[in-house]
Amino acid sequence: MKVGISVAEAQQIVLDACQVLGCETVASVDALGRVLAAPVISRRTLPPADCSAMDGYAVRVEDLSGASESAPVELFVVYEVAAGGKGERPLIAGEAARIFTGAPIPPGADTVVVQEDTSARGDKVEIRIVPQPGENIREAGEDIRRGDAVLEAGTLLGPAHLGVLASLGRSLVQVHQRPIVAILSGGDELVDPDGDAAGGRIVSSNTYSLAAQCREVGAEPINLGIARDSPEDLERLLRNGLRADFLVSSAGVSVGDHDYVRPVLEKLGCRLLFWGVLMKPGYPLAFGRFEQGEGPLVFGLPGNPVSAMVTFEQYIRPAIRKATGHSAWFRPVVRARLTETLTKKAGRLHFVRVQLAERNGRIEATSTGNQSSGVLRSMTLAHGLMVFPADATEMKAGAEVCVQVIDEQFFASTESGV
Amino acid sequence: MKVGISVAEAQQIVLDACQVLGCETVASVDALGRVLAAPVISRRTLPPADCSAMDGYAVRVEDLSGASESAPVELFVVYEVAAGGKGERPLIAGEAARIFTGAPIPPGADTVVVQEDTSARGDKVEIRIVPQPGENIREAGEDIRRGDAVLEAGTLLGPAHLGVLASLGRSLVQVHQRPIVAILSGGDELVDPDGDAAGGRIVSSNTYSLAAQCREVGAEPINLGIARDSPEDLERLLRNGLRADFLVSSAGVSVGDHDYVRPVLEKLGCRLLFWGVLMKPGYPLAFGRFEQGEGPLVFGLPGNPVSAMVTFEQYIRPAIRKATGHSAWFRPVVRARLTETLTKKAGRLHFVRVQLAERNGRIEATSTGNQSSGVLRSMTLAHGLMVFPADATEMKAGAEVCVQVIDEQFFASTESGV
Repeated sequence: MKVGISVAEAQQIVLDACQVLGCETVASVDALGRVLAAPVISRRTLPPADCSAMDGYAVRVEDLSGASESAPVELFVVYEVAAGGKGERPLIAGEAARIFTGAPIPPGADTVVVQEDTSARGDKVEIRIVPQPGENIREAGEDIRRGDAVLEAGTLLGPAHLGVLASLGRSLVQVHQRPIVAILSGGDELVDPDGDAAGGRIVSSNTYSLAAQCREVGAEPINLGIARDSPEDLERLLRNGLRADFLVSSAGVSVGDHDYVRPVLEKLGCRLLFWGVLMKPGYPLAFGRFEQGEGPLVFGLPGNPVSAMVTFEQYIRPAIRKATGHSAWFRPVVRARLTETLTKKAGRLHFVRVQLAERNGRIEATSTGNQSSGVLRSMTLAHGLMVFPADATEMKAGAEVCVQVIDEQFFASTESGV
Repeated sequence: MKVGISVAEAQQIVLDACQVLGCETVASVDALGRVLAAPVISRRTLPPADCSAMDGYAVRVEDLSGASESAPVELFVVYEVAAGGKGERPLIAGEAARIFTGAPIPPGADTVVVQEDTSARGDKVEIRIVPQPGENIREAGEDIRRGDAVLEAGTLLGPAHLGVLASLGRSLVQVHQRPIVAILSGGDELVDPDGDAAGGRIVSSNTYSLAAQCREVGAEPINLGIARDSPEDLERLLRNGLRADFLVSSAGVSVGDHDYVRPVLEKLGCRLLFWGVLMKPGYPLAFGRFEQGEGPLVFGLPGNPVSAMVTFEQYIRPAIRKATGHSAWFRPVVRARLTETLTKKAGRLHFVRVQLAERNGRIEATSTGNQSSGVLRSMTLAHGLMVFPADATEMKAGAEVCVQVIDEQFFASTESGV
């Protein structure tokens, strides 16, 4: 087991240990936000035939030579074709067909004149222009051809993708499974949110923030409850989580003498790969796995509420994204200008909670203030986590810094951009 | 009714007509992504008492004058305090208490020495430093004080907010209601995804892309089905949607002679505020409301799949965000460098589907190619919609352009930033 490693090394170990989950078949209408596990090959051509891109008249170009505003050419309108309909018979010299957007081009016609360039006169139409062949015609297969790999494996399914699946007649789709994350807290001092928080007891809020972090990234959390400070109780709850893909234990605030988590995990067959990461908040992080992958990846998180959330962000969230089939595993990273000078001791990488603001086209980062890992409220104010590198001792006001954006609403705009 | 207005004017009319929805009480654990309708005032102080920030020993500073590495001071360890516990009795001269992170500071003690600066010797401890008063103590109320407005109305609830609600013992929370959006398609040529798409019939894919666009922004879609091209059938379906907050009809691909939507809407009592917006794709957009607000806001969208999605983005999505209580109603807008020269006629604002890429710290925008409004597949490739202003006829390669980011996965990173 490695002890006291860097953040980058810890991320590498976690992501290397994490496997992409297999696939499942789900209803396309429920597949928003899922990641395709197999390419979608079209069995249809769309549009299925050449069709009109406008409302107007399907005509034969050769009938219209010399047509102009002052000398329009008159054609007989022999039938009408609506979308979903078809031309009754081939057009011959001197004939036109009324046609609507999406309707198939009737045989014989080779162009469509939009209705603005025409005048209807009873069963005839006057055409005032000489069109180009193929004008206002959408060719068969313009959108999709039979046999096309329309969507690639690894694609995140958004609204347009679900529209495409519908247009291909695919009511089912193969996507990657979503990880199950079992979460437990440990500590005699912890109570449920409905519990009695008098006498120094505190609510196991980590369970709820971690479960929401899971949901936000598309994983399925299971709340295993609170383990008392005894190896037996801890083992009982941990065993309940062995069927999950990730097992996340957040200690009570007490580490040290009261910490039974590591020995119990080892008893269950979990091999710890590292303990302790050179970061703040979040040093006392443990990570382990079962031999031959016969169990979940196991994360022992620190108990302080900010430490628990920040370690989730750095290690568990990217692992969930990898497991779910995403290709970009990390939060958006932006460059920002620091508005104040910050100092620390060398040795640990600090994740500084910051608020972001855009001013004159540049992003500015300002600390949320008190960086105590007990101040969960500061996480409700933070747009991002600023990276204060391990070796650095000072970052000056005005310096360009790297910020992981954890509140993506920061990007939303109050202006439409038009 | 206004005809042929600008995109900006149309957005203004829609957003002015849209009301913020009232509130509902939901379980806090289910409130991820909801918007607070009322401030959350704390009835607790957290931490409830001064407590230790570290594992170590609670001591009296006055006992330790002169303590050093070479001349440690020895104290009696008279009891132990764990998180959730309490000091048995006040400490007196020469006494210390073993203390763990989160545990309340015992009476008499005024500082905590971390265990790294001590050595345990049976029932005694050697202290090797002279601490400052108050060191390693988290003051009562450092996170939250009773009476604090911890979360403001209008706050989007993320994982940290749900953690705070749990720590305050709030299992219920008041949030804005989510809009119901009734969606129907119209056209004899349309079939369901399971239907027979032979003979020029096409799947009503708009229903599925629009429903997913609703879900993505937190609204609840209702699929009313496909109306045949008759006023009676259209009226029957539209009536089914009158209980919704938004009623969205996407025409069949056919507009013009076959368009019964507007007269039927007017018959039902809906007053159209505008028809036709100077944009491409998406000109034939209608918007109406019922007198005295006794019905949904009504959107008549064009039938082409890209037009339907783009008009949803410009008008319905911001309206849903306003109705849901958000303050930033629009997609992220980024400045990008255009990689190719684009041209068009003056008159309509074009929303050009573009792919975005970051290169040397700058964002580059490249058209997805064929901008036909029938090519839904192009929407699956687009990261954003580039604004090509109404009056402009050319945007040169290298120009700085405005892009609405519709695929926010564009921001996700392949690097962690550490």
